[in-house]
Amino acid sequence: MLDATASGVYVIAVTPFHDDGRLDDASADRMVDFYRGCGVTGLTILGVMGEAPKLDTEEAIGFSRRVIARCGALPVIVGVSAPGFAAMRTLARSAMDAGAAGVMIAPPPGTVRTDDQIVAYFAQAVEAVGTDVPFVVQDYPQANGVMMAPSAIRRIVEAHASCVMLKHEDWPGLEKLTAVRRLMAEGAMRRVAILTGNGGVFLDFEMERGADGAMTGYAFPDMLVDVVRLQKAGERDAAHDLFDAHLSLMRYEQQPGPGLAVRKHILKLRGAILSDAQRKPATPLSPLARAEVSYLLVRLAERDARAKGLG
Amino acid sequence: MLDATASGVYVIAVTPFHDDGRLDDASADRMVDFYRGCGVTGLTILGVMGEAPKLDTEEAIGFSRRVIARCGALPVIVGVSAPGFAAMRTLARSAMDAGAAGVMIAPPPGTVRTDDQIVAYFAQAVEAVGTDVPFVVQDYPQANGVMMAPSAIRRIVEAHASCVMLKHEDWPGLEKLTAVRRLMAEGAMRRVAILTGNGGVFLDFEMERGADGAMTGYAFPDMLVDVVRLQKAGERDAAHDLFDAHLSLMRYEQQPGPGLAVRKHILKLRGAILSDAQRKPATPLSPLARAEVSYLLVRLAERDARAKGLG
Amino acid sequence: MLDATASGVYVIAVTPFHDDGRLDDASADRMVDFYRGCGVTGLTILGVMGEAPKLDTEEAIGFSRRVIARCGALPVIVGVSAPGFAAMRTLARSAMDAGAAGVMIAPPPGTVRTDDQIVAYFAQAVEAVGTDVPFVVQDYPQANGVMMAPSAIRRIVEAHASCVMLKHEDWPGLEKLTAVRRLMAEGAMRRVAILTGNGGVFLDFEMERGADGAMTGYAFPDMLVDVVRLQKAGERDAAHDLFDAHLSLMRYEQQPGPGLAVRKHILKLRGAILSDAQRKPATPLSPLARAEVSYLLVRLAERDARAKGLG
Amino acid sequence: MLDATASGVYVIAVTPFHDDGRLDDASADRMVDFYRGCGVTGLTILGVMGEAPKLDTEEAIGFSRRVIARCGALPVIVGVSAPGFAAMRTLARSAMDAGAAGVMIAPPPGTVRTDDQIVAYFAQAVEAVGTDVPFVVQDYPQANGVMMAPSAIRRIVEAHASCVMLKHEDWPGLEKLTAVRRLMAEGAMRRVAILTGNGGVFLDFEMERGADGAMTGYAFPDMLVDVVRLQKAGERDAAHDLFDAHLSLMRYEQQPGPGLAVRKHILKLRGAILSDAQRKPATPLSPLARAEVSYLLVRLAERDARAKGLG
Repeated sequence: MLDATASGVYVIAVTPFHDDGRLDDASADRMVDFYRGCGVTGLTILGVMGEAPKLDTEEAIGFSRRVIARCGALPVIVGVSAPGFAAMRTLARSAMDAGAAGVMIAPPPGTVRTDDQIVAYFAQAVEAVGTDVPFVVQDYPQANGVMMAPSAIRRIVEAHASCVMLKHEDWPGLEKLTAVRRLMAEGAMRRVAILTGNGGVFLDFEMERGADGAMTGYAFPDMLVDVVRLQKAGERDAAHDLFDAHLSLMRYEQQPGPGLAVRKHILKLRGAILSDAQRKPATPLSPLARAEVSYLLVRLAERDARAKGLG
Repeated sequence: MLDATASGVYVIAVTPFHDDGRLDDASADRMVDFYRGCGVTGLTILGVMGEAPKLDTEEAIGFSRRVIARCGALPVIVGVSAPGFAAMRTLARSAMDAGAAGVMIAPPPGTVRTDDQIVAYFAQAVEAVGTDVPFVVQDYPQANGVMMAPSAIRRIVEAHASCVMLKHEDWPGLEKLTAVRRLMAEGAMRRVAILTGNGGVFLDFEMERGADGAMTGYAFPDMLVDVVRLQKAGERDAAHDLFDAHLSLMRYEQQPGPGLAVRKHILKLRGAILSDAQRKPATPLSPLARAEVSYLLVRLAERDARAKGLG
Repeated sequence: MLDATASGVYVIAVTPFHDDGRLDDASADRMVDFYRGCGVTGLTILGVMGEAPKLDTEEAIGFSRRVIARCGALPVIVGVSAPGFAAMRTLARSAMDAGAAGVMIAPPPGTVRTDDQIVAYFAQAVEAVGTDVPFVVQDYPQANGVMMAPSAIRRIVEAHASCVMLKHEDWPGLEKLTAVRRLMAEGAMRRVAILTGNGGVFLDFEMERGADGAMTGYAFPDMLVDVVRLQKAGERDAAHDLFDAHLSLMRYEQQPGPGLAVRKHILKLRGAILSDAQRKPATPLSPLARAEVSYLLVRLAERDARAKGLG
Repeated sequence: MLDATASGVYVIAVTPFHDDGRLDDASADRMVDFYRGCGVTGLTILGVMGEAPKLDTEEAIGFSRRVIARCGALPVIVGVSAPGFAAMRTLARSAMDAGAAGVMIAPPPGTVRTDDQIVAYFAQAVEAVGTDVPFVVQDYPQANGVMMAPSAIRRIVEAHASCVMLKHEDWPGLEKLTAVRRLMAEGAMRRVAILTGNGGVFLDFEMERGADGAMTGYAFPDMLVDVVRLQKAGERDAAHDLFDAHLSLMRYEQQPGPGLAVRKHILKLRGAILSDAQRKPATPLSPLARAEVSYLLVRLAERDARAKGLG
């Protein structure tokens, strides 16, 4: 079970499909093995980049069961954000029964705006999934338009013992991360884990600001694992060197829309999944974009070779 | 099966719950009978005001089956708007199998904005539900932020023979309604039915602008039926007199948030449902609001009595 | 100078233009006289419906000077909302120098969202206009997307002695109005005046919920004055009767876009201004809409005649 | 005068203030000289990152006159986006009289959404500033929520001979840039210049997709100049090497909010301006952020030294 001491990399897993749009079970297994091989601490499935809203309930339940089973001891967090609490509860209970470590919740767009509304939303969500289910608050205003002040996050954490983690992906977010950590340091707020998202493009400094790790889906999770490890070990320059080598590609993959096509394309190239198909609506990878990604991959490989040659 | 000659009142049905939040089957039947007694042409279920997002898939399927069965010859349109096409397809196929007359579709918030994106969205939705399923385009920017120009509506209608109706609830919408009808009159666009929403608060003039009827859930659907009938019969003043008598209450019921509580409260008072419970998140009716509704109901009854006394 | 005991009707004044778009000074004077004749307590100029953003700074200053001069003892509130504080300060100082009673401020769209950000915005605005200038907080989320919780309003009122009034036009807003008044009654918040907007379409109940009056621009301000007076006198039924007689037209005039054309058209018919011209961008009144307004005016006149005949 | 053959780097200039918030004339001159020394083709002043909304009209006119005078033969584009057309016209005419090369226009938030509305907006803007004034269409949905389809851009360009440039900063934007260039190549649309923004973080590929240069304000405009030059010369790898060396800092500077503080801080360090003060509302640079910027600057300098040592 997930708790507030969690750290490391919980990779945001893709959801693999066959070219015809059916869920691809073989790739799901393969993907788990790939992520495990990258050294991740756990998986987060059915997130925004997991194409969660494109699955119907039965599919979501089936997919989460399969992944959880394959993961074995590797903890799995299941995204259960939904337009309503019945669907959220159905998925959350099913996931926990199947052995999930916890769930992740973000409010839907358009319904909550003030601090009080945000706090009330999470109270109802906790009532829906059950107070015994560890949950992650996802703070992602770019996706849902919900702007959570540090004081609102504090109130949610204080109100619910089952809140064990903040997925921090407001942007810009460095000062907010520092503000939340300061509330914890001052004793105004219980300490919970903070993992960061947004494709990882600020992970270098987020680790220095107090993050416990990353929860994002960049197609080189091994790099995320190394950056988190290096930063924890105090090897700042090495962490930045590694990070900077990837930044051009990370930025390219972080584009909303085509970004997921880039990620799945690379994961396929790396053998993690058998098809890079997405369900509709999807932004396909144009031939130009594919060539740009190839160019970035070549440059990354060359830099890697150079680094090893010099090392 | 719904077709482009549809007209009259398709009442937006509420979804009745027990006080503890379970679906209330007995009230569902009772409600169908009540609406039938009001003289409506058909029902539209699982719309925005039908608390559709609060049901999980199984519940939505079960509820739609029950209502369709009870309705018998009375046509039922099922709202199938969903964050993804798999869930949309699942619900649409199930509803059609159960005997629905058609489905209603609105794009989700945040994903489509330009004319081209709107047109592409409906192409994918039609592919998902099947080209054999008659569908209603719901134009409701206040709810989803998607602003459909008349030219975009034209393209959707022209692209899909299965598009048979526009649910018009942009606000303000009188000039848009006229613009769409003009495109039809000029032959630029196939004629489809247009029913109007927004709680009915512009139904008086919408009928004069070319609407074929109403698709809204005001707690006095019998009044909507009469206004539509009077306007079609050319009895303009009588239509407005009746409409104006209800406007103060209609406005009160059209408030987002508390509006649904008002509607369910009145439907309960009228015996249409046994409980006015909503699932969370819900805005309850405060004692003050309840008293205001009572006051408006009394005034409505007095006006009604006066009208009959004078008539 | 405006203070927290203000009440009555501060009519949101239009800005009269010549047909060619120049400011119409003669109509500005005429309009002041008309409003005075309607019995209003004061004027609010350069609000959203005063086409304020369409004037350049020099014009805004000139117009406010002229209106203030013509008003004499009639207090004038000047809308000074602006994308930046320099422009806000320039207009506010100029207006106060010319004899304005106070200013009205709403945050611009897109910049502030959380409670803390809203409170901080008003702190900076007060610093810009000066702590000696009485100001009205305009709460109008439909126009600017800024959702102010009652607790945020409380903090603004408590932080600034110069805050003397809330212009309440959140929608729906009855429960919020009650919540704010309750904070005042409980001593959690200093009492300030509350006037309500939104075209007046909930003025009947807003007065019963604790509003001190109206700040809106409906083309029959005389009716607003009477409703406020009747409600204060405890003549509830009479207030509602009068209100209901106007509601069909009020609703028609409250449409965003064409609403201002309706308002100026009626004000011209009533002799308050010489031209109903708006500056671009403007939604003109279509011939159909003009006919609909005529129809509503005729019905209003007939009802009025009937009321007098029976009275 | 700006025309459709423009290319190179038009740097988005900051607006320098004294620590007390007054416009800093000496720094304005100094900044012009600095930018000239960086090899830029021209300046764009009073853009979003030029704190334009924080100046009142008189200040905006004064500042643009001073900069234009100092620039001499260096062309200056003046941002004239405004909530209304009177203010836009006032600033545009004044700027052109002072010798500006053209103006830049983006629609305000919240008023235009459909393709037709966007096209109509620019028609009114052109009428306001005059058909003799060369203008840049700024496509920046992240800032104003206005999503311009390539087809809408095409209609604007075709309708107005005075439209000479697109400032492309939709994000993600690579495919859109390609789509717009394809319309030009196919003859569906007159060729206009395309410069790209967004802090430059995709400039590497934007140049390969057909951009003519950059219009952004990254604090190392000399790098932007070099990347544009290298890409035009076909030196792709060299362009990417240079670009990648800066990407970590560019990303840091592109953060909305603190980004401008970073930019002004570095410009001050580089001697371009005497104070990094911003007018309120402003996000200051925290000590932590300042240290992070220092770290990035050191790394940049080291990489630079290494590159020279190896070269």
